[in-house]
Amino acid sequence: MKTENGAEYAVGDRNRVRQVRAAARYDRATVHAILDAGLTAQVAFCEHGRPVIVPMIYARDGETLYLHGARKARIVRLLEAGTEAALNVTLIDGLVAARSAFNSSVNYRSVTVYGHPRLVEGEAEKLAALRRVSEHLLPGRWDELRPPHDRELKMTGVVALAIESASAKVTTGPPEDEDEDYALPLWAGVVPVEHVFGAPEGDPALPAGSAPSPAIESLARSRARP
Amino acid sequence: MKTENGAEYAVGDRNRVRQVRAAARYDRATVHAILDAGLTAQVAFCEHGRPVIVPMIYARDGETLYLHGARKARIVRLLEAGTEAALNVTLIDGLVAARSAFNSSVNYRSVTVYGHPRLVEGEAEKLAALRRVSEHLLPGRWDELRPPHDRELKMTGVVALAIESASAKVTTGPPEDEDEDYALPLWAGVVPVEHVFGAPEGDPALPAGSAPSPAIESLARSRARP
Repeated sequence: MKTENGAEYAVGDRNRVRQVRAAARYDRATVHAILDAGLTAQVAFCEHGRPVIVPMIYARDGETLYLHGARKARIVRLLEAGTEAALNVTLIDGLVAARSAFNSSVNYRSVTVYGHPRLVEGEAEKLAALRRVSEHLLPGRWDELRPPHDRELKMTGVVALAIESASAKVTTGPPEDEDEDYALPLWAGVVPVEHVFGAPEGDPALPAGSAPSPAIESLARSRARP
Repeated sequence: MKTENGAEYAVGDRNRVRQVRAAARYDRATVHAILDAGLTAQVAFCEHGRPVIVPMIYARDGETLYLHGARKARIVRLLEAGTEAALNVTLIDGLVAARSAFNSSVNYRSVTVYGHPRLVEGEAEKLAALRRVSEHLLPGRWDELRPPHDRELKMTGVVALAIESASAKVTTGPPEDEDEDYALPLWAGVVPVEHVFGAPEGDPALPAGSAPSPAIESLARSRARP
């Protein structure tokens, strides 16, 4: 399935949400926002008919995800086989304490993307992709660092995954209980899950009194992402 | 590969960590602790040779994971096909700001489990599994709730995944930089990522002044898990 231009991903067999359809979202804005809010993605593929799953750091550039990880061997095999990948990012926003176990759940934002990965070989695209992954995790840090050495670029594997198909699921708000359960004398609601940055911990190898750089200071003041 | 009794999972082709081997852990204590700390797992399987990935809530009972999700249709198909599943739980503990982009990374705890899922059909095992999943997410809540109705049990799909093979990866501590980079006048270290519970948000349908139940109060005081 090709990604079409437009506000929504085309819905097909691959990406149709089959359960809790009311939570399904196919619009690019929602899919992009969840991908941009996550820190790591789980990437699954089939190798000799068996499932493999690997957590990877990533960043989005338009309709392309750049995946980076110390997984070069597997990624290369994956690419040689022309294998399809399925990628998921899930952010937990709250625990939903309903009036029954059956209706208790979690509030979450989740995106699943399908596509065929491509090894990034051109130096310019690789550098741009690495910068993007770095900025996704540590905004502003790239410009504080020396440029990568050629050797480092060669040792790094970057994979581009064009979004061929995608869907999101988003659940929010209080529990939905059985009609008769609302009369129970029991608290129900949501316990929010928040993700925050702690105080930066300096490398013990730093000279005494070293202060975090502006990018790190800025990051530590911001809200962490799950 | 069968799980052997003992302190470690047997290392084989399926679960051997191939990259960053120094971070690899095969001991049950580490694997179990990470599984017990996570809230959701990503479960991957192959369907007609193509990867599928689904986030699910779960709980561990010894060497068995119980998976629960609104995914009944897919789970049933998966089981009918006798498909293998690969499950990953990844917890991000910190962003590692090194002195170069190449050495920057994340500190994380990650577990991957392989096994062949089995649909839980006996009522007693299903009830015990649901209790365990509930207690994993909302400790103490189960006993505050009415027992599940028969109809609810029938509508719930629970899958048992015996751990046939597993591995963990754990990275901690400050960055490891290139020797020559330590002389750079640049802060380096770790920005911790912490996961905390916010103040419980009562269902608007509650009577005015309803106080959270003891389980919810206790949960909100505890440290959230990612």
